[in-house]
Amino acid sequence: MTLDNILEEIKNAENILILTHESPDGDAIGSSLAMNLALKQIGKKPEVIIREFPRIFMFLPGSEEVKLEASKKNYDLIISLDCADLKRLVGREYVEISKKVINIDHHGSNVMYGDINFVNPVAPACCEILVGMLDYFDIPINVEIGSCILAGIITDTGGFKYSSVTAETFEFTAELLRKGVNVSDIYKKVLETRTKGNFELLRRSINRLELIEDGKIAFTYITKKDEEEVNAEPGDHEGIVENGRSIEGVKVSIFIRQKDEENAYKVSMRSNGNINVSDICYRFGGGGHPNAAGALIQGTIEEVKEKLIKEVKKVV
Amino acid sequence: MTLDNILEEIKNAENILILTHESPDGDAIGSSLAMNLALKQIGKKPEVIIREFPRIFMFLPGSEEVKLEASKKNYDLIISLDCADLKRLVGREYVEISKKVINIDHHGSNVMYGDINFVNPVAPACCEILVGMLDYFDIPINVEIGSCILAGIITDTGGFKYSSVTAETFEFTAELLRKGVNVSDIYKKVLETRTKGNFELLRRSINRLELIEDGKIAFTYITKKDEEEVNAEPGDHEGIVENGRSIEGVKVSIFIRQKDEENAYKVSMRSNGNINVSDICYRFGGGGHPNAAGALIQGTIEEVKEKLIKEVKKVV
Repeated sequence: MTLDNILEEIKNAENILILTHESPDGDAIGSSLAMNLALKQIGKKPEVIIREFPRIFMFLPGSEEVKLEASKKNYDLIISLDCADLKRLVGREYVEISKKVINIDHHGSNVMYGDINFVNPVAPACCEILVGMLDYFDIPINVEIGSCILAGIITDTGGFKYSSVTAETFEFTAELLRKGVNVSDIYKKVLETRTKGNFELLRRSINRLELIEDGKIAFTYITKKDEEEVNAEPGDHEGIVENGRSIEGVKVSIFIRQKDEENAYKVSMRSNGNINVSDICYRFGGGGHPNAAGALIQGTIEEVKEKLIKEVKKVV
Repeated sequence: MTLDNILEEIKNAENILILTHESPDGDAIGSSLAMNLALKQIGKKPEVIIREFPRIFMFLPGSEEVKLEASKKNYDLIISLDCADLKRLVGREYVEISKKVINIDHHGSNVMYGDINFVNPVAPACCEILVGMLDYFDIPINVEIGSCILAGIITDTGGFKYSSVTAETFEFTAELLRKGVNVSDIYKKVLETRTKGNFELLRRSINRLELIEDGKIAFTYITKKDEEEVNAEPGDHEGIVENGRSIEGVKVSIFIRQKDEENAYKVSMRSNGNINVSDICYRFGGGGHPNAAGALIQGTIEEVKEKLIKEVKKVV
């Protein structure tokens, strides 16, 4: 079984490097930190590289151990978490020169770039995969590991909201509560703490939000200039796309955010019901989950908007 | 035990009227509908009066049975749910002329106006009290009753977010999921469906939101004119106060909403941590929970704001 192979590789590896995707969210960070703490419990000394670490996750146990650079040239084993594609893996330069890669993920769009791939697209979060995996490995989920895992689950289920959430998700959370984990505190820190910058971006994006196609499409945007003016930090744009999705009648919510290059926009799309925005983003070179996907598109705001609306109109 | 007395009163009553508080939220409506369905399971024919029923809750099982007026002049038994004070009970005119009142609630400020009072201020929702009560009564929580109860729990825990949430809350939710209740669907309908009116009120209130006292107090408001201009429906102002609370550094969020009378404002307050806004609202004749309370204050926007800020400044 794959899990046995994974455990064997971990046991045999002298040195292990844990990596995750760019613009890391709570699931990327939570799963990386949880894996690091878990491996330490069985006597390993793994390293974790995350180069852009949103301040709101600094409260998570073990975040002080995260580094910007690896200490070695190459590794016996790389464990990649929550990352569908090698192109998005931060620290991918180590992949070629290291011996083995284990790819643990829950994205249906995962391209299976690992030597061992453990991909479960039904799991609501990469962190939820770790619950079963650590159980199988007989590594107890203590309060610290549990807190990291919960942060990932809360992030990727929108706070127990998405339809991907399982009975196991709720049972696991009940168990953590009984162990003394402050679930409410983690929830608020992960999902409810708006930095001032996030609030100001929210204010601007809500002001600009347009309802298109008889209210079936919501569209809004944030520019580089906005982010500069409100002193935005990494991650301050997170959650903005959700506002459009929550409006009654909206089937697809689109949020675009200017990249460092003048004429490129990072697209975030969310859908309600059966509309697959991953398919739409795929056409623009992106991907994701059926109800939550993204892409990168060249053009001005108006050009990008037009390209996207044209495609989305076909499905709403 | 009180629960035995309650069951006895229910069994002995020929006719039962279920009532709840004005401006009913998901917990008021969920507990009323759940009680109605539960009593029907044991052969009773209760009536439920709710005079202002937010459209977003119309999906709940049994909502089609709710009436604006009672069919009888008086009742053997009135069951009041989620209502701290007789003054706020819609249908209180029946209380005096009916034989008995059972007061089931989770507000610490409950004034114990019932002949039997079953008040548990530690319960995160009145609906969560019903879980244990129906279990004690041996009335099975089927999918319909469970859906109503879940709607109340989701409303009053802010979607499993507040610190009042218990391991039992999560276990109960897991159980409902296993029974086939679409938890995600109920969550979205209750908390995530913004009517257009709600979105437009949100847009205005966020635009006006002020951060006061070094960012420790958030203040915003909605007028009668706003509600008219956006064609607001009952309940469209719900949730607005939460936006202020979520901003980093905010300790108290204040939202005021003009009543039908020109110079009166309904105050909603939310706090983070140990700040007790119920105490503050009590000084203005209101009340609620430590972290979520309300009151009604006379004056113009500026006057009401000044009165409130003066009191809140003392505690932040």
